[in-house]
Amino acid sequence: MSQPFTPKPNPSVEQDQFLTILSREEAIARFEAALFPRQLPSETRLLADALGRALAEDVVAPIDVPPFDRSNVDGFAVRSADVAHAGEAAPVQLALNGETISCGTAPTLPVLPGIATAIATGGPVPRGADAIVMVEHTQPVGHDAIEVRRAASPGQFVSYAGSDIARGEALLRAGAIVGSREIGMLAACGIAEVLVTRRPRVAIVSTGDELVQPGEKLRPAAIYDTNGAIVTAAIAENGGDAAFLGAIADNEAMLEAAMRKALADSDMLVLSGGTSKGAGDVSHRIIARLGKPGIIAHGVALKPGKPLCLAVCDGKPVVILPGFPTSAMFTFHDMIVPVLRRMAGLPPRSDAKVAAKVPVRIASELGRTEFVMVSLVEGADGLIAYPSGKGSGAITSFAQADGFLKIEALADQLPAGSDAEVTLFTPHVRVPDLVIVGSHCTGLDLVTAPLAHAGLVVRSIAVGSLGGLAAAKRGECDLAPIHLFDDKTGTYNAPYLADGLELVPGWRRMQGIVFRKDDARFVGLSAEEAVRAALADPACIMVNRNQGAGTRILIDRLLGGHRPDGYWNQPRSHNAVAAAVAQHRADWGMTIAPVALASGLGFIPLAEEHYDFALVTARKQRPAVQAFLDALASGEGRAALTAAGFRPA
Amino acid sequence: MSQPFTPKPNPSVEQDQFLTILSREEAIARFEAALFPRQLPSETRLLADALGRALAEDVVAPIDVPPFDRSNVDGFAVRSADVAHAGEAAPVQLALNGETISCGTAPTLPVLPGIATAIATGGPVPRGADAIVMVEHTQPVGHDAIEVRRAASPGQFVSYAGSDIARGEALLRAGAIVGSREIGMLAACGIAEVLVTRRPRVAIVSTGDELVQPGEKLRPAAIYDTNGAIVTAAIAENGGDAAFLGAIADNEAMLEAAMRKALADSDMLVLSGGTSKGAGDVSHRIIARLGKPGIIAHGVALKPGKPLCLAVCDGKPVVILPGFPTSAMFTFHDMIVPVLRRMAGLPPRSDAKVAAKVPVRIASELGRTEFVMVSLVEGADGLIAYPSGKGSGAITSFAQADGFLKIEALADQLPAGSDAEVTLFTPHVRVPDLVIVGSHCTGLDLVTAPLAHAGLVVRSIAVGSLGGLAAAKRGECDLAPIHLFDDKTGTYNAPYLADGLELVPGWRRMQGIVFRKDDARFVGLSAEEAVRAALADPACIMVNRNQGAGTRILIDRLLGGHRPDGYWNQPRSHNAVAAAVAQHRADWGMTIAPVALASGLGFIPLAEEHYDFALVTARKQRPAVQAFLDALASGEGRAALTAAGFRPA
Repeated sequence: MSQPFTPKPNPSVEQDQFLTILSREEAIARFEAALFPRQLPSETRLLADALGRALAEDVVAPIDVPPFDRSNVDGFAVRSADVAHAGEAAPVQLALNGETISCGTAPTLPVLPGIATAIATGGPVPRGADAIVMVEHTQPVGHDAIEVRRAASPGQFVSYAGSDIARGEALLRAGAIVGSREIGMLAACGIAEVLVTRRPRVAIVSTGDELVQPGEKLRPAAIYDTNGAIVTAAIAENGGDAAFLGAIADNEAMLEAAMRKALADSDMLVLSGGTSKGAGDVSHRIIARLGKPGIIAHGVALKPGKPLCLAVCDGKPVVILPGFPTSAMFTFHDMIVPVLRRMAGLPPRSDAKVAAKVPVRIASELGRTEFVMVSLVEGADGLIAYPSGKGSGAITSFAQADGFLKIEALADQLPAGSDAEVTLFTPHVRVPDLVIVGSHCTGLDLVTAPLAHAGLVVRSIAVGSLGGLAAAKRGECDLAPIHLFDDKTGTYNAPYLADGLELVPGWRRMQGIVFRKDDARFVGLSAEEAVRAALADPACIMVNRNQGAGTRILIDRLLGGHRPDGYWNQPRSHNAVAAAVAQHRADWGMTIAPVALASGLGFIPLAEEHYDFALVTARKQRPAVQAFLDALASGEGRAALTAAGFRPA
Repeated sequence: MSQPFTPKPNPSVEQDQFLTILSREEAIARFEAALFPRQLPSETRLLADALGRALAEDVVAPIDVPPFDRSNVDGFAVRSADVAHAGEAAPVQLALNGETISCGTAPTLPVLPGIATAIATGGPVPRGADAIVMVEHTQPVGHDAIEVRRAASPGQFVSYAGSDIARGEALLRAGAIVGSREIGMLAACGIAEVLVTRRPRVAIVSTGDELVQPGEKLRPAAIYDTNGAIVTAAIAENGGDAAFLGAIADNEAMLEAAMRKALADSDMLVLSGGTSKGAGDVSHRIIARLGKPGIIAHGVALKPGKPLCLAVCDGKPVVILPGFPTSAMFTFHDMIVPVLRRMAGLPPRSDAKVAAKVPVRIASELGRTEFVMVSLVEGADGLIAYPSGKGSGAITSFAQADGFLKIEALADQLPAGSDAEVTLFTPHVRVPDLVIVGSHCTGLDLVTAPLAHAGLVVRSIAVGSLGGLAAAKRGECDLAPIHLFDDKTGTYNAPYLADGLELVPGWRRMQGIVFRKDDARFVGLSAEEAVRAALADPACIMVNRNQGAGTRILIDRLLGGHRPDGYWNQPRSHNAVAAAVAQHRADWGMTIAPVALASGLGFIPLAEEHYDFALVTARKQRPAVQAFLDALASGEGRAALTAAGFRPA
């Protein structure tokens, strides 16, 4: 929601709403107490359309399965007493009564003493018979008799009526999820339709004028609506019938009308959006008018997810998710999915948990439960859980995590080296085959593409060159991509390698100055001339790079001690530099050629950066590492890098 | 398929088809080699409609996310250099430039030295600014200035462009399954539709005149088509687009026409039905004409599943499943699902495995791989895997199993007490809360209903009274329902209890003689008179019960040494006795009153049977056991038992 933003710089007023903040456990308890128990609506569905649904009532078997005593083999129905002493040396001759019982044929003649009836697998055992002799254990005698060469015991090769499913037994219980196996049992009893819990209808409304729906053109300052799509999909994944109503314009009357209609048509309403505090207020005011009891929790002592709002309006749950995507998705999974599944008659999700070691210290705020999204990699002594460094504003913090760990409200940190229990987002942990921790480059995606397409899981964790080196030294990755310039030797990378690491040459990335192509101040200049021109114009603003970046060293050399306007704007990536210049937030900066090209910026080449790999020698013989080295050296790999503007080493 | 069945009693001819039997591994290898690699057809789908599908191509991020440097808090965009030394004791005053940046608002004014711009969470950082000061750390100074009371470092509370997703990075790889998290990443980049692998269209045809579709009336000698429904559902569960074409009449020309049309419209054809050997021949003959290379494996050294037929016709898989439901479903999951998932672009199912002990010896045939469906219960020292005793002809062997264990082709048995690895059918094992092993009774379902509805998992394994007692003595169950008459004492059950077991009284079941209500020979007689009447009529056939059944003792007493016709027909359940009489396969037998009632038979009461529980004392305090005892003693439980014809003890 983008209400015109008016900062309220008075902390005492601003903090008011947090007086009602509940603990996560208290918020869950109050929310569920206001919703359950409740009668779940049900509907009758054909078997095939009931897949994945919860049965709304017990199903009692209406018939015996099989419905009659059935032959399990092809052969002859006999009286076991007649052939009790039959054998190879003492064959017993039985007359055939002329009847042949196929599947589906009801016998008409009884099996009298000394008589046999031909019967197929699945055929009903005729009156008088109590056993089946396999055709393989008989010999024909003319056309109307057989010799039986093996004894038969009573009941041999007979499946008795009701031995699979007995009429009157509780076949399935209310609450059972209808899968293919349940459908098999129901079909076997002749049941064609079942009463299932109706899927809860959930309306999803995005709020915020800054939101543009995927597929549409992005305006300046606007962002794509992520939460609308992901919440809609997550509702479908958890038994709901999701209706995404799009983003509602930023107008209290229109929003209230939309919310009232959505709630009238649905069993649940989920609002997403509203990253700013002021924005949320409108939705809260409306909810207070929608029905009783209204807001249950406004703010939860939970990270990510503090701004979550839980309400119940005349028996229906109404939720305002936090605007930050990872906050929205984590709270949705943690607190809304359990309610949704219960409304759908589904059992709680049973999340798998694994033990892992945390390689770095994670700070946490006292007084609120914190959940940290983590990626798992295989270390020397078991799993290692890397916290996502991107924060709750990033969708990838949630979407690329394997799971999460919990820091209790009373702890202010998780020390490096801690053992943690990681709750997985998927039933099984798929540990990556190749782990790359360090500086990321789009060239890396090109080299790992054949591995990914061969079914190998490649995980690349972007922590910068120094972070990668540290991980490699600890043996937590296979490869650390680095581009570290050593001032003393005037060379890249090699001086930084410790024992146990070896250098694998990667490729060169041309660094240079970017500017908008229509900026006459820079057109046609060399790098040195461009910097002189920039320094000469007080209106000209630069964008720098973060301390420690190889590019930063180059920039500082070029500036020779100058600190022009924009020097303190220090983003951490080549892409951010290009975006700043393209969006007029800065006029020049330094990035690499492929990024300049993709951004449509002018580019003045300056010097090549060496993007190489610190390989953990102990892991060199792993098949995935070998596959990576092969891909890097391959003609296809080198051609792809060259086409993208890199120069393979 | 119910071709008129003609037994061929010549073993040498009959064995011919088995000459080509392949091992399971060889059959899988040949089948997959004939199908893969192959080009998978793809289609473009909207995000919401792509849920669960496999991406058909890599997706490269087309934009940076966020697209601009974004404020993470409500506050003021500043130059960090201006407030580098700000503090409570040394507030820094900045002038407001009058602009307020909401979400979605593009800044128009730069932040010059000494100036600040109000900015909301999610707003784009304006030109000149390099940090955000939280509103909480400021104080208003009139209407057009603020005091900043805390220092800000460069980049504070800024999320740089591309820090979540960088333009040009490989966002998702071909083969990735689109879940809500992937949808989130795609939506964040503004992607509204994706190229996914098209779901393989699979036609399912049931064959066999004996098959009746669920919902229709069951003819005598007919059975319901189980495999059609379960295979259709299992295909949907594994990424296929299933089209069930119903049961095709038993006519070679019609079947061929149906198979040709189905194959032309589909990517795969699955035939099910044909329990008899002769029946299958027709389908095989047709497949040989459908396309090259034709049949790959006809008969696999596998149990259950030996009659499985695998074919590839002009590049499309054609499968004839065994007719027995558990054979059909096991082979479908073991050999067809992997092919189906690969055609759908999905990864192999990752089946969870658990270790368990096998309490009984399981015999196996040398020379073929045997898979044994098992139910898991918690024992004193870990999981115990009970083999299903029902065989491959029963759907419940598969449908009620938790998983299966494997006996290698070279082993002829798995000894009692073996450690086995059980492959689960579902990702997590849900060990039952209450385990009841022994004789089953529909009254038991009534007593356990409230437990099931409260979410407890109750497992009842029917192994008869003596089998239940043995399990209870080994501590493998909580309760063993028994009805064992002791001739010596003339009492039920108590004399059979060993140390560590205690008797919980259950209910009485009235046993008596059943007959068809229109059978004048029995109407109005006492039990003794009825047996005398039966013995007097040589055309009258009885149905007995198995040795060891309590009812059998009663029958033998009544017969007083006589062995009338039908004596050797010895089914194992009350239901089978009723079915035999109702279906004219026998004229009288002994069963319990509720079963007689459900079957619409005449009933002559004779004596009450005591259905009690041997409770494992060591498990008595378990909550589920207590819940069971409560339900048994409750007024509702007793009323339900009484209404169903039982007499609570």
